[in-house]
Amino acid sequence: MIAPRTAEIPESTKTEGVRLTDAQRLDWLRLIRSDNVGPRTFRALLNHYGSARGALAALPDLARRGGAARPIRIASREDAEREFKAARSRSVTLVAWGEADYPQRLQMIDDAPPLIAVSGNPAALNEPMIAIVGARNASAAGLRFAERLARDLGAAGFVITSGLARGIDGAAHRASVATGTVAVLAGGHDHIYPPEHSDLAAAILAQGALVSEMPLDWEPRARDFPRRNRLISGLAVGIVVVEAAKRSGSLITARFALEQGREVFAAPGSPLDPRAEGSNHLLKQGATLVTEAADVIEVVRPILGRPPEVSVEEPEAPAPNGDHPGADERTRITALLGPTPVSIDDLVRLSGASPAVMRTVLLELELAGRLERHGGALVSLL
Amino acid sequence: MIAPRTAEIPESTKTEGVRLTDAQRLDWLRLIRSDNVGPRTFRALLNHYGSARGALAALPDLARRGGAARPIRIASREDAEREFKAARSRSVTLVAWGEADYPQRLQMIDDAPPLIAVSGNPAALNEPMIAIVGARNASAAGLRFAERLARDLGAAGFVITSGLARGIDGAAHRASVATGTVAVLAGGHDHIYPPEHSDLAAAILAQGALVSEMPLDWEPRARDFPRRNRLISGLAVGIVVVEAAKRSGSLITARFALEQGREVFAAPGSPLDPRAEGSNHLLKQGATLVTEAADVIEVVRPILGRPPEVSVEEPEAPAPNGDHPGADERTRITALLGPTPVSIDDLVRLSGASPAVMRTVLLELELAGRLERHGGALVSLL
Repeated sequence: MIAPRTAEIPESTKTEGVRLTDAQRLDWLRLIRSDNVGPRTFRALLNHYGSARGALAALPDLARRGGAARPIRIASREDAEREFKAARSRSVTLVAWGEADYPQRLQMIDDAPPLIAVSGNPAALNEPMIAIVGARNASAAGLRFAERLARDLGAAGFVITSGLARGIDGAAHRASVATGTVAVLAGGHDHIYPPEHSDLAAAILAQGALVSEMPLDWEPRARDFPRRNRLISGLAVGIVVVEAAKRSGSLITARFALEQGREVFAAPGSPLDPRAEGSNHLLKQGATLVTEAADVIEVVRPILGRPPEVSVEEPEAPAPNGDHPGADERTRITALLGPTPVSIDDLVRLSGASPAVMRTVLLELELAGRLERHGGALVSLL
Repeated sequence: MIAPRTAEIPESTKTEGVRLTDAQRLDWLRLIRSDNVGPRTFRALLNHYGSARGALAALPDLARRGGAARPIRIASREDAEREFKAARSRSVTLVAWGEADYPQRLQMIDDAPPLIAVSGNPAALNEPMIAIVGARNASAAGLRFAERLARDLGAAGFVITSGLARGIDGAAHRASVATGTVAVLAGGHDHIYPPEHSDLAAAILAQGALVSEMPLDWEPRARDFPRRNRLISGLAVGIVVVEAAKRSGSLITARFALEQGREVFAAPGSPLDPRAEGSNHLLKQGATLVTEAADVIEVVRPILGRPPEVSVEEPEAPAPNGDHPGADERTRITALLGPTPVSIDDLVRLSGASPAVMRTVLLELELAGRLERHGGALVSLL
């Protein structure tokens, strides 16, 4: 993970955190709400231009050079101000990466959101968290187990995080409302999903919190749920999967957890129960078997207070002013790209371009909506 | 494991096996049916005296010197002949350790019975076997899973071995009657337990076999079941535990399997189901999780044809004729013993007695009914 080398974000997560000025926060919000800017691109832009304001100014040119079909849509100052105002009126706080209230572990993930919208008790976000996730169509036994586990882990001082879904998620939240639980939303704070969990969401706010990286009025689409799952695992020291079918969202969360260096636990289930296929599969792959809270606590206790093990990338060298890629370099790099993800290192080697030029060309393509970034420094053409 | 250095038993289990003469077999039967002679003592006696006949002659003196309260009961030639005759009339064969029909893997265990009573198809005993064991009060799902696993492993060429109990055992046998299954009895062949499994036992005989180390008319007592379990695991390459409560017989079988270097598998179950506590516990301890036959086959395939890894003890030096322990040595050794198991090596070191003298004193105490042998060359006073 690259800690952006700018005054806006501290280099070390050990510090108390800095606070953005209102103007900076507005720029951050505009940048992350602009087209084709995801958390990784945001980070790259901030690294490259030193500030969100500098990046915003550079966006149109970058996208044009990347071959965008039409001018890139940049979030307006007015839209951003409107979002801030709406958030304030609903007691939702926009917390920036690097600020004291930003959850420490989430900060360590590769694609941590630059801003998270938080309502409820922000202190809950810096308690040690365990995620409990699982099937929506859970069995009575699965629900009961999720409740017991959430209650016992809550009593042991852990905040329970989950996705507010029907089934296991709901049971885990409900059993830890009193001790503190964090629900990560796939949509904005104005779109609690499923609607029947609005009361639960309201109850969570007293001790716990609701978290979203999306605009308040964002209605969650199917593809927002898997993307959201990286935040559930990213907040937690470890995740427990209770009743998950094959190819379920819970397994996606487990995959994120592994990539993020988090502990993965699973509750066993009957080999004949399709709802246990996913969790049993995780156990075969080496997840820790859980039948009681002590199984989780035993593993995570020694980890608490220690940041997760993640690969650290070298911070990039500052871009010299005249380091713009030439048209032929851009063509050569684009020709090397295709739908199959390739490593940026390979691209540098094969194209003969300098790393700085490579980064700029990739940023351009990305902002033009033509490039996708994957984990492990892999990229592909869309 | 010590291969007795006598013409009666081949040194290597790779050979075709020898056959005992009728007279030798009679002596073996008399020796193992005599008081205080278990499989380990039998082995020690055969090593020491070179033949069962020699051991039989030595028994009274040994027991007397060991401090037996009354003369040791030695099985009479008439009783042994009667047992042979009864076995023959019921088509039960008494197969001796080292003979071709004696199951190869069972032969490798520390306390393999010198003689096993076999009915049915003896060829089944030298096929690769998987044991499937579990709860008597199994759930419908557990029974169905045991059936499916036994059927699939049977179709893959494995003989299924189990204990003929109600529940999981019965389901596993029933599903593998057509492909071959071996039931190990806790009592003799005349006492099928539970009685309602008489028909199942009869059906097993066509492709599979019934095995017992007890006299035909032996009515099984509670303590015969755990002892019998070592033969279920001893026959098999690996054992699968399906639904086992805490402190259940299936866990005893799993412990034997570990001691014997066999693979241990367990089917997962709900953390809320007490019938799955034992199997989930095994999984936590490192047993391989099984949801289908392939999980078992993948692990055992590379092991087939390879003997289990067991610690090999040095064969003892032949006892010089005048190597009888003196009364003071006997007293010193006995004083070192108590109800807590101690290692024979420690006894040799602490007593200053020679290993040969130590062996003789321990045999004497054992035959006097005063000594218990445990695994790992540990002994304690009764």
